[in-house]
Amino acid sequence: MANRASIPKGTRDFNPAEVAKRNYIIDIIKSQFKLYGFQPIETPSFENSETLLGKYGDEGDRLIFKILNSGDFLSKVDDETLKNRDISKISSQISEKALRYDLTVPFARYVVQNQNDIDFPFKRYQIQPVWRADRPQKGRFREFFQCDADVVGSTSLWQEVEFVQLYDAVFDQLQLKGTTIKINNRKILSGIAEIIGAQDKLIDFTVALDKLDKIGEEKVKDEMLQRGISEEGLKKLQPLFSLSGSFDEKLLQLSSLLEDSEIGKKGIRELEFIYASISILGLRSAKLQLDVTLARGLEYYTGAIFEVSAPSGVDMGSIGGGGRYDDLTGIFGLKDVSGVGISFGLDRIYLVMESLNLFPEAISESVQILFINFGDSEAIKALKTIAILRDNGVSCELYADAKKTIKQFNYANKRNIPFVVLLGTTEIENKVFTLKNMKTGNQEELSLDQILERFK
Amino acid sequence: MANRASIPKGTRDFNPAEVAKRNYIIDIIKSQFKLYGFQPIETPSFENSETLLGKYGDEGDRLIFKILNSGDFLSKVDDETLKNRDISKISSQISEKALRYDLTVPFARYVVQNQNDIDFPFKRYQIQPVWRADRPQKGRFREFFQCDADVVGSTSLWQEVEFVQLYDAVFDQLQLKGTTIKINNRKILSGIAEIIGAQDKLIDFTVALDKLDKIGEEKVKDEMLQRGISEEGLKKLQPLFSLSGSFDEKLLQLSSLLEDSEIGKKGIRELEFIYASISILGLRSAKLQLDVTLARGLEYYTGAIFEVSAPSGVDMGSIGGGGRYDDLTGIFGLKDVSGVGISFGLDRIYLVMESLNLFPEAISESVQILFINFGDSEAIKALKTIAILRDNGVSCELYADAKKTIKQFNYANKRNIPFVVLLGTTEIENKVFTLKNMKTGNQEELSLDQILERFK
Repeated sequence: MANRASIPKGTRDFNPAEVAKRNYIIDIIKSQFKLYGFQPIETPSFENSETLLGKYGDEGDRLIFKILNSGDFLSKVDDETLKNRDISKISSQISEKALRYDLTVPFARYVVQNQNDIDFPFKRYQIQPVWRADRPQKGRFREFFQCDADVVGSTSLWQEVEFVQLYDAVFDQLQLKGTTIKINNRKILSGIAEIIGAQDKLIDFTVALDKLDKIGEEKVKDEMLQRGISEEGLKKLQPLFSLSGSFDEKLLQLSSLLEDSEIGKKGIRELEFIYASISILGLRSAKLQLDVTLARGLEYYTGAIFEVSAPSGVDMGSIGGGGRYDDLTGIFGLKDVSGVGISFGLDRIYLVMESLNLFPEAISESVQILFINFGDSEAIKALKTIAILRDNGVSCELYADAKKTIKQFNYANKRNIPFVVLLGTTEIENKVFTLKNMKTGNQEELSLDQILERFK
Repeated sequence: MANRASIPKGTRDFNPAEVAKRNYIIDIIKSQFKLYGFQPIETPSFENSETLLGKYGDEGDRLIFKILNSGDFLSKVDDETLKNRDISKISSQISEKALRYDLTVPFARYVVQNQNDIDFPFKRYQIQPVWRADRPQKGRFREFFQCDADVVGSTSLWQEVEFVQLYDAVFDQLQLKGTTIKINNRKILSGIAEIIGAQDKLIDFTVALDKLDKIGEEKVKDEMLQRGISEEGLKKLQPLFSLSGSFDEKLLQLSSLLEDSEIGKKGIRELEFIYASISILGLRSAKLQLDVTLARGLEYYTGAIFEVSAPSGVDMGSIGGGGRYDDLTGIFGLKDVSGVGISFGLDRIYLVMESLNLFPEAISESVQILFINFGDSEAIKALKTIAILRDNGVSCELYADAKKTIKQFNYANKRNIPFVVLLGTTEIENKVFTLKNMKTGNQEELSLDQILERFK
């Protein structure tokens, strides 16, 4: 019985041109990670379920792909549980492993497990796929790559400064000019909540504030009232809605709003340090922007919060994000290890680059030379030449079969192979090679040395 | 509650030194794949279960990791089935996806699904992890990488010739000299079975023959008798046990054994062609050996069968294998597409390289320069210099905190950072940098230009 050839919803095949483009992005990210002193680690695709479950909230738990135990997977489930169809209990009894949901939790697990072999501060990068049983949509897949860099074991704000530089360096090298690196600080959000007497409603408050861009001031205020923020609190909040000007002008306005909050003032000082340092160091093509509405990952971020948006005119959520988390490894029993990290959204960066036509043409080029196959006695001579070319770093191939020349030329054209070599009986007799440029149609007779010179 | 930090049985974390070594191998394999004209594709980590199940035999099906459906996974299972604990039926009703078991079946599925966009012959390579619920042991893991190159859409024996060259090129460039590329041909095994009147017992016959190395001639004969090969057949088989000499001498002996079998003679001619071509083209450091006992993958191979063994003295099964399969895509409805391919066993190659001490020292080196952190005012100046160095491709980092210098030096030593730069108040005043070689302890005062010159 023939199976229908298809792949699961939300997953993708990548053809050679797509792999080349993805690797172009990954290689640039990787080379900058290395220049900044980050070292690569890799963790298994699946972890013990207990490592992952309960770390991403209820919604996260639902989105984690669970792996069915091998063999008689029902052996641990008793008749009663089975009969009651107790999904959650059965699930934990028939599945002990789950696919990685992100790279942060496995990294925390890695740090704790290897704490005696690690020299802190530990600067690691990790570029691997993650899986989420989310509803697929534009730019959201069930299997996608994360590219993360983190530093654990230091509270120094120089890390935050360097991450801003790193974002700038990567996007600049990708020719993705005009990105905006938005920054906020959890302490500022805590300070504001304190000022308006809503410390216990920090999440409610920030969830509403986060929508300012989309629904506007009035609706945000309505939502805050519904979520239990007082009228009086809202009044104190007014300066927040009219925050304007440059980074340091906004900081000044925030300073006066937060003058009575110790934690708020600490947040201000941290942002001041990062902004002042970046002003001295300069950025290539990104812009650093203070955005007090930014509240992503508030469940675990404790200091800086980052988010990068694509150049204006491109409709694509964030293409990167990150922040500082003061106690990530605590869940695995290692206390007081501060970490800060950023992530690059490979798939969205790809879509943005595609829409702005930023991929260099050269990267999709396949093999450099195709040797025409004229039959066995010519082919073996072609292979001798091909061996020499490959030794010199020139990628080339012999057409598989001695089919009609026109068919072989068509193959070269379809595969975008820029040059074809003809080595027939005449050429072999005269010890030359006919080199044909497939773009111009131009043909030349060359010696082996001349071909080597041309392609080396 | 703190979780215990651990990973599932048969999986591994890779630390920075291990990732560097693995990438060293992968990069060499990849660069040769490219020189030979192969193009990369990637397929999803999980496939629809129907794509994978039934393709690897019963044993294979058992080893495939199945993914539990999300949400109410029991909704399709009726009470009766549940009560009867019908594992196989329940399994198919609660799981629709499974982790990739190898790269060959997903590749076949890819070819069929994208047949209209592919220009045949299609030369693809694929380097991705695969998963098997096998019992872990030395060199065998539940998650491991396969590195495959295949050509589909051509029956030309030049492919086999090029694969022998490719194996040789990769292992030679890895400095893994003295590997043996063993080759056999399914048609020869069929021919022998025909000669001894055991066409219907081809698998029985080859399974026994495959053990010649391990259990010796007599025991192999005993097993063949048990498996129903006749005494008379065994007599005819005698030349096979005394096969000796060089590749062409063995071929000659086989020729006389198989003179009455058409299919056997075809196998001989194929091997002759490959051997003669390789003799003309030459190999760098591998040896091509005819091994009629080689029977791996006999279920699907129809022509050449390859297996590579490590240099003598290293105890490690095969480090590569492959062969020709005439109808791989048939299972997905695309008939008459011949393919041939080889695979590199990354994990075993790694273990062999480690045991022979073949990894270059340089690859485990991390960042090139550590800048000592003397406090904020010096640090910002260090970061200005670091930015220039990174622009010039020199990897460097600032130590995170202004801790005691000795602590920062220790960090450099532990991380194998070869150079440290001191930029304190004196250096800043004199516009110089103190560069310390951590191996020799030697210190020099250099200008920025001199440092750039040194490291660029």
